[in-house]
Amino acid sequence: MPLNRRFTLVRRPSGVPVPEDFLLTEEPTAALEPGQFLLRNHYVSIDPAQRGWMDDRPSYLPPIALGASVRASTVGQIVESRSAAFPVGAWAAGLNAVEDYSVGTEGGYTNLVDPDAVPSITNYLSVVGPTGLAAYFGLLSIGQPRAGETVLVTGAAGSVGSLVGQIAKMKGCRTVGIAGGPAKVQRLLNDYGFDAAINYRGKSVEELVAEIRRAAPNGVDIQFENVGGDILDAGLLAINPKARIVLCGLISEYNSEPRGARNIWELVVQGARMEGVILTHYFDRIGEAVPALIGWVRDGKLRVDEHVEDGIENVLPAMLRLFDGNNEGKMMLRIVD
Amino acid sequence: MPLNRRFTLVRRPSGVPVPEDFLLTEEPTAALEPGQFLLRNHYVSIDPAQRGWMDDRPSYLPPIALGASVRASTVGQIVESRSAAFPVGAWAAGLNAVEDYSVGTEGGYTNLVDPDAVPSITNYLSVVGPTGLAAYFGLLSIGQPRAGETVLVTGAAGSVGSLVGQIAKMKGCRTVGIAGGPAKVQRLLNDYGFDAAINYRGKSVEELVAEIRRAAPNGVDIQFENVGGDILDAGLLAINPKARIVLCGLISEYNSEPRGARNIWELVVQGARMEGVILTHYFDRIGEAVPALIGWVRDGKLRVDEHVEDGIENVLPAMLRLFDGNNEGKMMLRIVD
Repeated sequence: MPLNRRFTLVRRPSGVPVPEDFLLTEEPTAALEPGQFLLRNHYVSIDPAQRGWMDDRPSYLPPIALGASVRASTVGQIVESRSAAFPVGAWAAGLNAVEDYSVGTEGGYTNLVDPDAVPSITNYLSVVGPTGLAAYFGLLSIGQPRAGETVLVTGAAGSVGSLVGQIAKMKGCRTVGIAGGPAKVQRLLNDYGFDAAINYRGKSVEELVAEIRRAAPNGVDIQFENVGGDILDAGLLAINPKARIVLCGLISEYNSEPRGARNIWELVVQGARMEGVILTHYFDRIGEAVPALIGWVRDGKLRVDEHVEDGIENVLPAMLRLFDGNNEGKMMLRIVD
Repeated sequence: MPLNRRFTLVRRPSGVPVPEDFLLTEEPTAALEPGQFLLRNHYVSIDPAQRGWMDDRPSYLPPIALGASVRASTVGQIVESRSAAFPVGAWAAGLNAVEDYSVGTEGGYTNLVDPDAVPSITNYLSVVGPTGLAAYFGLLSIGQPRAGETVLVTGAAGSVGSLVGQIAKMKGCRTVGIAGGPAKVQRLLNDYGFDAAINYRGKSVEELVAEIRRAAPNGVDIQFENVGGDILDAGLLAINPKARIVLCGLISEYNSEPRGARNIWELVVQGARMEGVILTHYFDRIGEAVPALIGWVRDGKLRVDEHVEDGIENVLPAMLRLFDGNNEGKMMLRIVD
């Protein structure tokens, strides 16, 4: 049985995670039960959501147990199997953990993937992983964009936001992106085709509202929210009647007490709606989303940026870069090529 | 031309309104233009929304201008007319102001009403006025209750909340009400048929969450929000997947800076939705709501409590009682019987 390095949670972080919250352990993989298979993880997804799972509070998934590997989406190749449906040599992706090897089970959260269907196997952690699916269902099912509407995307240079902006543009919308710093603003305009881009750094809520109104002269019909805090509050002051606020992430508050939204009164004033994106509610429609996303990538309509760091020992620095906003594209870790 | 006493706004309140913010003026009514009519206001509605209209900030209606009468729903009888559609002697209700006489215009926000269709003409300011319509559309269109679901109502002893609880019960839901003080809790159980009632006074968010969970053992499917602040945040911690939060009022913050909702992350966790009720978006469906509401009242299925204070000079104390929670039923002022 191969040795398995596991990035385990040994203490619940208080605020920003520190090295003492984790331990890199090494132990032989367990023997497989019938119906199980062993996945050699090649790439591990690093996501803001992981920070929430480290807290001891109820969520859409149970907290990561102390002593357990940090939960993560991974993609890899099956190297042992006691399941006919998951043969050795096949590729699979799913919700596993930051570790060399994950044990999968038939009917679990790991599914076979076709490496030839996508430009890169890593795409199963980005555009056809949770990131792309959140963009797809959040924008299309909750946001329901109509041609001519204005879509405001916060965290717009991020892995979800950059896809949302491009899909909204395909749907005929005006796209306005908010991101941190001039370099990201340039990427929004040049790489992701946003019609307008705003740097939120150093700006008050009032200044942000003024910039949003300038960039969205007809008001905001859809706000795709990845950030929260002042940025969410600023957007709420620029929404149109019957606006849809797609709540996908609140990265500004994952390392602190909940801050929430102060300006929810605007939902009453405008008869507007704010709705959370949770992928488990869309599992029955993944068969619709994946071919659409892959099609857009293959047709060159959807630019997908991935930020790959090397080595399981670098998981914490990679995670912290997400919260610093110091990444360019979907963050992931290469365990083995 | 009759003399018209008008309750005018002369200064924008800072926090809780004080007498110096208003002036009771008296002047002759203006001559009518063609298409106009003069309404002798009999009853004037006192609503939390009026406080918001006094602020100089954009909302679903323009701010009340300084020197203008305080906007209010009224019901009264037409005493002069230059409109064939609004003949003298007919009764009408609409969005007018706190004054003896209001000038209405064809095609405006004032409509004829039938005094014989309801037990009391005052019902046009309560159950078949904005209050009842907000309960009806908020619960049925946004909340979409299904039999067996649990509906949590905050401000449940209030004019909107008491109707929401009863309509939800008719739809086969379990109803849980939150109100301030033991007397209101008794009214929730005895008068409005709530299945469970919670007194929020003196309780922390954690204690409130525990009480809500006890009262709603299957979780909360619909939260009909009239209050905001800690009460809204507590409810959000008890919602079910795909819950609907109907945002109708935030009375706890009308006299202060916006406080909003801290726990909006729960909307993501549960894939839940929060939507504001604004009556102007439902005008095309009023013809459906009014007969339904009147029918329930006549059939004895809907108990309607009204709290009538006397005299235009008492408008400010009546208004302040709303914010103290010191009223029993829809607050209104009798100008003349």
